[in-house]
Amino acid sequence: MTLSMYQASVPRLVAILENLSAILDKAQAHIDARKVDVAVLMGARLALDMYPFSKQVQIACDKARSVVARLAGMEVPRYGDYERTLADLQARIARTVAFVRSVPPERIDGTEDKEVVLPVAGHETRYTGLQLLLGHSMPNVYFHVTTAYNILRHNGVAIGKRDFLGQP
Amino acid sequence: MTLSMYQASVPRLVAILENLSAILDKAQAHIDARKVDVAVLMGARLALDMYPFSKQVQIACDKARSVVARLAGMEVPRYGDYERTLADLQARIARTVAFVRSVPPERIDGTEDKEVVLPVAGHETRYTGLQLLLGHSMPNVYFHVTTAYNILRHNGVAIGKRDFLGQP
Repeated sequence: MTLSMYQASVPRLVAILENLSAILDKAQAHIDARKVDVAVLMGARLALDMYPFSKQVQIACDKARSVVARLAGMEVPRYGDYERTLADLQARIARTVAFVRSVPPERIDGTEDKEVVLPVAGHETRYTGLQLLLGHSMPNVYFHVTTAYNILRHNGVAIGKRDFLGQP
Repeated sequence: MTLSMYQASVPRLVAILENLSAILDKAQAHIDARKVDVAVLMGARLALDMYPFSKQVQIACDKARSVVARLAGMEVPRYGDYERTLADLQARIARTVAFVRSVPPERIDGTEDKEVVLPVAGHETRYTGLQLLLGHSMPNVYFHVTTAYNILRHNGVAIGKRDFLGQP
């Protein structure tokens, strides 16, 4: 028995993004019922100097597809940040999930010690594949999905931790 | 090259809990400078029906030690929820880190397919070790640490995502 880099990445990223998608459905129902302008939700923040809701979802997608592409030695697909509605964000999540799922296990497995160099806060930072996945990218994705969730909870959307966790 | 259950658990749990501890130091400096009653921070919430700051930190610790104990086939150490100050929470984090670190790799490695039965929302839920770790416990720990972080950010504590991520 061993755990593979693929098992620790692709199925987990797909799961949390699908949970985020289901949370966005509940957010849509919430604003529809209250006739809230979606722009208000897209721009909602927990602090003036934090990213708004829309950006939290965008970054969660970006971190998910970039780690998979980098481990697999592929070009990271570039997505512009054009989303203005929850439907737009749902499309970005769906596109991200499709990309992540498209990468075969053999491109990811065995990348534990692969060197990946990333610009972090303007400096080149060297990671092993394992450090990148478990010490940078997975925490980052969970961070942004949780922050998106917290913005919704702060604004009264009826969701709970089960929505975040989904099925194990 | 393979990834082990130990690598995917103990060092990652220790890292995020140590990052949380450093964040709590910044929160302490923030309330000291403003002469804020620590009870106000301990009870701060993002929504009326969400757990307060103190409980977010408590649960992060609980999820970390319980997954390690369960994978290792050990009794989960019980901690009462007595913390009233940030120093108390720091002690809980330190105790959790010490316990997590005390479990040797050979007790954790090879538990990918081990069956673990947990009560979730009143129902017995069966997990494999891998599902428990990657699909339940790690997301749970990141969820509660991020929520503690978001409560602090919402209240003006000067922290950033680098504090959450720490070193990879």
